[in-house]
Amino acid sequence: MKRLPKYIHQAQGKLWLTEDERDDLKISYRIKEVLFEETSEFQHVMVLDSYDFGPMLVLDGAVQTTSKDGFIYNEMIAHVPLSLHPNPRDVLIIGGGDCGAAREAAKYNQVARVDMVEIDELVVRASKQYMPEVSGNLSDPRVHFHYADGVQFAKEAQREYDVIIVDSSDPVGPAVQLFETAFYQSLHRALKDDGIMVSQSQSPIFHADIMKQSYDRIGQLFSDRRLYTAVVPTYPGGLWSFTLGSKQPLREPERVVFDKETQYINQDVMTRCFQLPTFLQEHLEGVANV
Amino acid sequence: MKRLPKYIHQAQGKLWLTEDERDDLKISYRIKEVLFEETSEFQHVMVLDSYDFGPMLVLDGAVQTTSKDGFIYNEMIAHVPLSLHPNPRDVLIIGGGDCGAAREAAKYNQVARVDMVEIDELVVRASKQYMPEVSGNLSDPRVHFHYADGVQFAKEAQREYDVIIVDSSDPVGPAVQLFETAFYQSLHRALKDDGIMVSQSQSPIFHADIMKQSYDRIGQLFSDRRLYTAVVPTYPGGLWSFTLGSKQPLREPERVVFDKETQYINQDVMTRCFQLPTFLQEHLEGVANV
Repeated sequence: MKRLPKYIHQAQGKLWLTEDERDDLKISYRIKEVLFEETSEFQHVMVLDSYDFGPMLVLDGAVQTTSKDGFIYNEMIAHVPLSLHPNPRDVLIIGGGDCGAAREAAKYNQVARVDMVEIDELVVRASKQYMPEVSGNLSDPRVHFHYADGVQFAKEAQREYDVIIVDSSDPVGPAVQLFETAFYQSLHRALKDDGIMVSQSQSPIFHADIMKQSYDRIGQLFSDRRLYTAVVPTYPGGLWSFTLGSKQPLREPERVVFDKETQYINQDVMTRCFQLPTFLQEHLEGVANV
Repeated sequence: MKRLPKYIHQAQGKLWLTEDERDDLKISYRIKEVLFEETSEFQHVMVLDSYDFGPMLVLDGAVQTTSKDGFIYNEMIAHVPLSLHPNPRDVLIIGGGDCGAAREAAKYNQVARVDMVEIDELVVRASKQYMPEVSGNLSDPRVHFHYADGVQFAKEAQREYDVIIVDSSDPVGPAVQLFETAFYQSLHRALKDDGIMVSQSQSPIFHADIMKQSYDRIGQLFSDRRLYTAVVPTYPGGLWSFTLGSKQPLREPERVVFDKETQYINQDVMTRCFQLPTFLQEHLEGVANV
C-alpha cells in the first residue's frame, strides 16, 4: 500500500485530514485525493481534494483556504481597505501565498504595483498549480513576487505603500511577529501619509484575546482604526475578524461605491461588515490589554 | 469502567463527541462530563459539558445548542420577527425545546401569551435543569408549554397568532414536515392578518437547496418574504439562514428601534442581517425549484 502523507489517516477505507490546531475541538475532512505534497524549509505543504470543499491548501496539517469558500476571506481582506482608500496605487501584501488577495487587488485599475511578500515559494507554486479557483493562476504583470521575510521587508520600506494587507497564518511560530507592536510600527512607517493597513485578527469566538490585542495595538499607532468581520466556513467558529489601521480618518463605508465583480462582498456587505454584534462590541470596549 | 453513553467515544483517556450528521465532514468536541442522558420515545437526549462550548444539548448525537453560543441563534430567530411586528401579543413557537426563543419572546412587554409547542418534554426538562444560560430556567407565566406535534397544533389554529417562530431541527425524520408547503399553509392560516412567521432555513453553504426551497415556498404563500443570516459557530459552515414570511409588507428593518437587552442582536445587526453576500443573493434569485 502507498504510504499515507503526514496528517492524513485512513478509517474504514476512507481518507481523512483531522486538524489538530485546537486541543478540544477537531474538524475532520474526508479526502478524495492528495493532489500535492512537499516539504519546504519552512513547512509541510499539501493540496488535498476534499469532498465538501474541493481542493484545499493545507500547511502543517491546518487548512488555510479552500476552493469552495476561499473567495470570502480573500475578498474581505483585500476589497475593504482597497475600496476605502481614495487612490490605491502601491499595494503590499504580506503572506497571502495562496495569491487570492493579490488577485483581488489586481481588479483595481488604479493599482500600479502589488508587492507580494511570501516567505515560502512552495505555497505560491502549489496554489497556482492546484488551486486556480483561489489563485486565479495570477500572471498580472503588476504583481511582483518576493520570497522573503515579511517582517524584514516591511522594516525597509518608507512611505511607499497606499495599502498594506497582512494575510498571515495563525500567531504560532514565526507568524507571532506579525501580531506584535514592532511590526505594526514598521507598517505605519511603510505607508504613505494617507495609507491604510489591514490584518486578519483571528476568531472573535476562540481568540478574542488576540483579536483585542491587535485591535488595541493598531489603535495606539494609527489615527483611525476599525474592526470588521466575515464568515469563513472552514475556520473554527465560522466568524472571523479583520482590523484596519489608517493614518487619516477613514471614509464612512456607506459612502464607498463598490463596483468590482465579486462573489461575497458588495455594496451592502461593505457596510454591514463593520456592524458588530453586541458581545463583540463589549469585548472591544473592555479595558485595553496591550 | 463505567459504560460510555451512545455517541461518546474515548481516545487516549479523553472523551469525545463526534457529530455524524455529514458523511464527509466530522466535528469532534472534547467532553468534560456527561451531565444528562436519557432516551425519550422520540430521541436520545444528552447534555454534555464540553471544553470549548460549555454545556451542550445533544439530540441523537447532533449538537443543537451550547451555553457559549446558543444566544446567537435564539436571539436571531426571536427578535427579528418580534421587533418587525408592530404589536406582537400572541406568539407561537414550534420546536425550540431549549426554551431560548421563548425566553427572548418574554422580553417584550406587549407579548401576552407564548405557546411553546415542543414534541419532546424531555428536551425541555434537560434544558431547564442543565442549560440555564440558554433556557433562562423559564418560569414566565405567559409561557404555556404544549408537549405536542407542532404540525397538528398549527393545523388547528386560525388567525390566532401575531408571530410564529419555527425553531426546528434539521429536515430529517419527523422534522421534514416542517419544511413542506402544507405546513407553511397552516402557519399562514394560524396567523392574524398582519402576522409574521419565521423559520430557520438551514446553511447557505451546505444546504443551499433546502434554503432556497423554503424561501420559494414561503414566497408563494406570503405577500412579503425576506431571508436573513447569522453566524452560529457550532453549526457546520458557521453561516445560518432564516426566512421570514409576512401577510403584510414588512417594515424596513432600519426603521425598527431595537431596545432589548441582548448579547448578539442590536440596532445595527437588525439591519445588516438582511444584507446578503453576492453568492447568496444570486442563489436565491436563481430559477425557483419548489
